Amino acid sequence: MVSDRILMGPGPGNPYPEVISAFTRPVLGHLDPEFLELLDETNDRLREVWKSSHPLTFPVSGTGSAGMEACLVNVVSSGDVVVVGVNGVFGARLCDVAERCDAHVVRVDAPWGSPIDPQRLLEAHPRPAVIAVVHAETSTGVRNEIAPLAEGKGDALLLVDCVTSLGGIEVRIDDWAVDLAYSGTQKCLGVPPGLSPVSVSPRAVERFVERSRSWYLDMRMISAYVEAGAARSYHHTAPISMIYGLHAGLGALLDEGLENSWARHAQAGRRLQDGLVAMGMELFAAEGHRLPELTTVWVPDGVDEAKVRRELLDRWSIEIGGGLGEFAGRVWRIGLMGHTARERNVDLILSALTELVG
Amino acid sequence: MVSDRILMGPGPGNPYPEVISAFTRPVLGHLDPEFLELLDETNDRLREVWKSSHPLTFPVSGTGSAGMEACLVNVVSSGDVVVVGVNGVFGARLCDVAERCDAHVVRVDAPWGSPIDPQRLLEAHPRPAVIAVVHAETSTGVRNEIAPLAEGKGDALLLVDCVTSLGGIEVRIDDWAVDLAYSGTQKCLGVPPGLSPVSVSPRAVERFVERSRSWYLDMRMISAYVEAGAARSYHHTAPISMIYGLHAGLGALLDEGLENSWARHAQAGRRLQDGLVAMGMELFAAEGHRLPELTTVWVPDGVDEAKVRRELLDRWSIEIGGGLGEFAGRVWRIGLMGHTARERNVDLILSALTELVG
Repeated sequence: MVSDRILMGPGPGNPYPEVISAFTRPVLGHLDPEFLELLDETNDRLREVWKSSHPLTFPVSGTGSAGMEACLVNVVSSGDVVVVGVNGVFGARLCDVAERCDAHVVRVDAPWGSPIDPQRLLEAHPRPAVIAVVHAETSTGVRNEIAPLAEGKGDALLLVDCVTSLGGIEVRIDDWAVDLAYSGTQKCLGVPPGLSPVSVSPRAVERFVERSRSWYLDMRMISAYVEAGAARSYHHTAPISMIYGLHAGLGALLDEGLENSWARHAQAGRRLQDGLVAMGMELFAAEGHRLPELTTVWVPDGVDEAKVRRELLDRWSIEIGGGLGEFAGRVWRIGLMGHTARERNVDLILSALTELVG
Repeated sequence: MVSDRILMGPGPGNPYPEVISAFTRPVLGHLDPEFLELLDETNDRLREVWKSSHPLTFPVSGTGSAGMEACLVNVVSSGDVVVVGVNGVFGARLCDVAERCDAHVVRVDAPWGSPIDPQRLLEAHPRPAVIAVVHAETSTGVRNEIAPLAEGKGDALLLVDCVTSLGGIEVRIDDWAVDLAYSGTQKCLGVPPGLSPVSVSPRAVERFVERSRSWYLDMRMISAYVEAGAARSYHHTAPISMIYGLHAGLGALLDEGLENSWARHAQAGRRLQDGLVAMGMELFAAEGHRLPELTTVWVPDGVDEAKVRRELLDRWSIEIGGGLGEFAGRVWRIGLMGHTARERNVDLILSALTELVG
């Protein structure tokens, strides 16, 4: 028995059908001219989706957290000041990774469910090497503002976690002057987990450390393979089939149109959030800062939340997520990401929840 | 136009057909009970293929070099002595990664094409923390002996690169007392690149550093997700579809029988090496230490080696590999790995090479 889930948790979402077809393409070698052409096209598509002109834009050979680590280990030296905004699990993870780089981490906390005031990030330290923040907090469903950081960042590099935002809401690497951005394939890009697209500004490349703490994630070496026109020097064997999948997922997304994908996510999210409120439920994330692609909602009093999730899985084959940290058992996280972000899925989950808790 | 290569380079090889079918299985969430069952079964299959009883046996979410780094960063502290055998690119890579862990690296060099004397590794330092060696050097086609290291290793951890050996030649983690072993999916396991199976002894787990230099590769945290019966705590999102592929590839391998797979690789390799010698060509690796799954052969005088590889690709859609380092342009590397290790592929490459250089 092979289950065919509707994936409405915090990721993975359901992949676009084109992606699964692409996985069946015969494997090519990582130095095959046909593969390098496909890799170049993948990176071109990524630049479109990132709204980035950065030559160093490519998928890191690991999941989103590998992209996070790749962005930090290539620019942070021992003792560097890294300002990190923390209003959820992934902000805290940024601190953890930065500390392992022996950075001096300056935390700017905001309550879970609330956004971080960009001004506080800019004023946290007079001369940070890096200012890091999560765009879309997957643990809370909150969107943090990035655009205001562009002007005030001064000499600092701006590092942004776009794991749950890329493809689902507005992301503008060039306009927002983001120096280091990473994402994951399994969220709003509609591809299974396994790769972490990154986009790195020439300004960040200039500040690359001499020898990164990580060999596997050393972008100085990786760039000699992934960049169009580079020497194509072998670093590690590229994950060929996953790159086929990413190439196809980005193709589906761009065929639809990036702005149309944003609009589809926005509409689906609004429909879900309106529907939950109409059922008498209370949303967790602060109004005006809610992500359409990930909705957090308080579990109603007296409801056994794990039982509801089990019934959704067993009867409807729908996955939704539970809360993290102190909100485990107290909130649900309902994702509408990539191919999953469709009206029919919203209507189905509302109908099922009405039956179970309504 | 989508090419259907016969992959006879140093990896990737052609995947088993079962693997490509498995990629089309609907994506499950990384905490879905059905997925966790498949992950457990994958790790059980890995233990069979590794001939390992180690509870901590799982696929690292990255390619072979991520596995290398994962094995080092979890046990090496600043100043630790790491003895490394170097007779090719991957031994040198082990030194590079160990140096980035601030290890004191003691190199034991042997000429490329020759094996490393195990006794020299054991005598290189009185009290090393780790002795590291590559079992099957992908850059030269040489097999280094591992079994003799078991008895003499003393208090040191024994770390072995099995990227190109696992599934293709005899590997015995328990019998050889290997503490840290890593492989890659794209070689003799017959799965596309993307994952790095590792097997870690309880003895190595006891010596895990408090907080690994890498968050992404921190096995202390990862073990709480991957081990059967563990808390299944979320660390990073598992690469679901790649794990489907690995599960299926291991299934195909074990259906054939591990020893039968070794025998098939041995027969194919012997047939190729005998055929090349019969054509008047000279093998690069020292006799008695040649890998069946990767044959290195000197390019005959007066032959434009890059042109031959291009013609193989264009006319027969066959990929073979060139030499690395000082042997670039001077040797070919011909792989017979996983599904590729078949008589029909040997006969085809010999026939094509006879036409091109015979």
